[in-house]
Amino acid sequence: MTATPETVTDPARQDALEDGQLKGSFVDSIGEALEAGDEALIQEMVEPLHNADIADLIEQMPPADRAPLAAALGDKLDPEIIAEMDETVREDLIDLLSHERMAEVLGELDTDDAVAIVEDLDHEDQRAVLREMQPDDRAAIEEALGYPEESAGRLMQRDLIAVPEHWRVGDVIDYLRGGSDEDLPEDFYEVFVTDMRHHPVGTIMLSRVLRSPRDMGVTDIMEAEQTLIPVEMDQEEVALRFQKYNLVSAAVVDASERLVGVITVDDIVDIVRLEADEDFRKLSGAEEGGINERTRDIVRQRLRWLVINLGTAALASLIIGLFAGTIEAMVALAILMPIVASLGGNAATQTMAVTVRALATDELTQANTRRTIVKEIRVAVINGLAVAALTGIGAWLFFSDPALGGVIAVAMLGNIILAGLAGVLVPVTLDRMDIDPAISSSVFVTMTTDVMGFFLFLGLASLLLL
Amino acid sequence: MTATPETVTDPARQDALEDGQLKGSFVDSIGEALEAGDEALIQEMVEPLHNADIADLIEQMPPADRAPLAAALGDKLDPEIIAEMDETVREDLIDLLSHERMAEVLGELDTDDAVAIVEDLDHEDQRAVLREMQPDDRAAIEEALGYPEESAGRLMQRDLIAVPEHWRVGDVIDYLRGGSDEDLPEDFYEVFVTDMRHHPVGTIMLSRVLRSPRDMGVTDIMEAEQTLIPVEMDQEEVALRFQKYNLVSAAVVDASERLVGVITVDDIVDIVRLEADEDFRKLSGAEEGGINERTRDIVRQRLRWLVINLGTAALASLIIGLFAGTIEAMVALAILMPIVASLGGNAATQTMAVTVRALATDELTQANTRRTIVKEIRVAVINGLAVAALTGIGAWLFFSDPALGGVIAVAMLGNIILAGLAGVLVPVTLDRMDIDPAISSSVFVTMTTDVMGFFLFLGLASLLLL
Repeated sequence: MTATPETVTDPARQDALEDGQLKGSFVDSIGEALEAGDEALIQEMVEPLHNADIADLIEQMPPADRAPLAAALGDKLDPEIIAEMDETVREDLIDLLSHERMAEVLGELDTDDAVAIVEDLDHEDQRAVLREMQPDDRAAIEEALGYPEESAGRLMQRDLIAVPEHWRVGDVIDYLRGGSDEDLPEDFYEVFVTDMRHHPVGTIMLSRVLRSPRDMGVTDIMEAEQTLIPVEMDQEEVALRFQKYNLVSAAVVDASERLVGVITVDDIVDIVRLEADEDFRKLSGAEEGGINERTRDIVRQRLRWLVINLGTAALASLIIGLFAGTIEAMVALAILMPIVASLGGNAATQTMAVTVRALATDELTQANTRRTIVKEIRVAVINGLAVAALTGIGAWLFFSDPALGGVIAVAMLGNIILAGLAGVLVPVTLDRMDIDPAISSSVFVTMTTDVMGFFLFLGLASLLLL
Repeated sequence: MTATPETVTDPARQDALEDGQLKGSFVDSIGEALEAGDEALIQEMVEPLHNADIADLIEQMPPADRAPLAAALGDKLDPEIIAEMDETVREDLIDLLSHERMAEVLGELDTDDAVAIVEDLDHEDQRAVLREMQPDDRAAIEEALGYPEESAGRLMQRDLIAVPEHWRVGDVIDYLRGGSDEDLPEDFYEVFVTDMRHHPVGTIMLSRVLRSPRDMGVTDIMEAEQTLIPVEMDQEEVALRFQKYNLVSAAVVDASERLVGVITVDDIVDIVRLEADEDFRKLSGAEEGGINERTRDIVRQRLRWLVINLGTAALASLIIGLFAGTIEAMVALAILMPIVASLGGNAATQTMAVTVRALATDELTQANTRRTIVKEIRVAVINGLAVAALTGIGAWLFFSDPALGGVIAVAMLGNIILAGLAGVLVPVTLDRMDIDPAISSSVFVTMTTDVMGFFLFLGLASLLLL
């Protein structure tokens, strides 16, 4: 565990940080020192910082200053800083390192951190860097790369403590105390018990090993129950298991159920956050790009969804076009129609956000889908009635036209009920078809509420008001 | 660590689960057994399930069947099942338990889990239940309740191992092996070293205790660097520290920097997910309500935002109303105007989603705000030009009117640039004013793009086309 004594009195660190973030003034001072070419000052300034803070510092510098800053850090550019960095920022920096230096950096990291960096390199760089590495580190990384991206195999640590079933507590203690540093992982929380075929049969928390009599059998104190993670399981699924069963760590097994690694909960925290961020951005049509993404990539990702949105908006316009005559005869319709579409879109987004996250976190299942749909319809009817009444009365008073108020109220009610239905049915259907509901629900749902909003309102108006 | 051997061959459990979720057919069978009043069958069926799965089962039953199912479980209704349950479902069940039974349940849980349940009870129930509890459990819970909601004090475990600075490794091992079960927490990962005033000075991973010579001083093997969490710190902030510094656990200190508890990363996973879910729903105007929320609460929460949205939509309609004459003279404007507003809204949502999450995860800071704004403007100009060109050409061809195409193109470009600006400036400004950007950004931003979309398009049209 590495950490920073932020509340401990360390004046140098307190100068740099505020509410857990680097101060803007500190980042500026680093920029000035960099411009002045004062490497000694920079190294002195970052001295009290945690590696994660130095990674933040590099991220927060203007892109053109990042490589010079990394160079100015010299020996202070710890491999962990590179591992902590945002992916996009890291890729830019890595291009500047020699293959030898990269191999050195990777060799000092845990396998999972090293894999996370290597997997983003292009094929040729990957091979060149791996060639420079120590054979055992290289083998570990190559094995991990053999598993699918974002799978348990990429995430797991291969270093773990496994002991045979027939051992006693005393054997375990002697083994742990006697083993050379080369054989054992640096930090670990538990010991795995395996049978003769290397299948995991149980786990023992280290605190329990310490607190049990030496002559007790390991099988007597182990937890026999355990969640085994198949090595090919997707990381999102792995994270759900950890959350559901409150796991601290879990054994990873290959296809023949042999113990091949261990995943610990500290790696899961990052995944939970990244997957939530991804859903969040996808639902908004912003895709993968975080704030450090390159402008070119952001433009490409977002433009795709804007063009799709242009298509659905054009479709809605075609519907309006059908009623051009009606609008010409009664311009109040043009004034009011965006309200019907807007409220429908808002109601749909509410339902959709809840549904998409409930699907992503396994809360919405076969057993409660029907009940959820019924509940959403009930909510839509109640809220639809309330909003329709308000809008209807408003339109009536403003245009002194009770019939117009009636038409907009009915159209609004219809559109909000439809919005509730679409908000839950579209994501559920996409999910059943194995399409990511986060990425594609918005488009379909907004299209539905726009098109139907205009159609209901203008259609009813042309039937009843003219 | 409790867990479920899902991939281990256990036919009974494999009958119940599929892809980590309870099968719909299993939930249905439980429903049938419940209707038949066959408690023995129900208890036999849930026997192989993990407590977390039983909690899921209760959640997935129709609301009216939840209390009868809980009753039918009898002794199998483990306190952990109640702790695992969704908050809303739990509240309904708890109303049915006697104060004595509640006190019993809470006594068997870890302090943090017990606090999470007690804090949701109303004041009178809280007092009645606490009165029935063992004095030491009660004192622990009351102390936790003295800290602000969602603070580190509510989250922390009070049971921890602290040893004085002058001890040697052998002293620690003897203490751990000799201590009675009453004195020591059940499971722990590390030992805290404290000075005479009970200030934490370092931590030692348990694996390091085990692997060091008995005569080594604890201060020689401890990690002196550490992140101390003030007991009043908000849980979202705590979660950010854990993520940033990759912490497995952290010491919690009171105002005079004395060690009062410990927070471990497994509790952080839930917070990261809950906070992300909350942001997600807030940004969509769905507020706190997950899928298990009561209909009445969902209606109330969502209706508020629909009414606010009705206000902003009415404002947009007022703008359109200013140009009623223009629209009457040229109905094509009514047909095209939603496209301008829709694309603006879409572009703004993309920027806003990225900005809100970057603020929530401390990626957007003082140092890079200006750069982010400049980047967003650049993206908006490029995407605005692309979309404006497409729309302009489309309108020109469809209405055979190049001037109309020109007007919509210019309005579109203007609105998308404005959308990019609003999408980043609104959340950043709200955040600086200490208003949660997730909850209020949508309304302001959509209002801006709607109002400005209609104003730009209709205004330009009335100036140039008539």
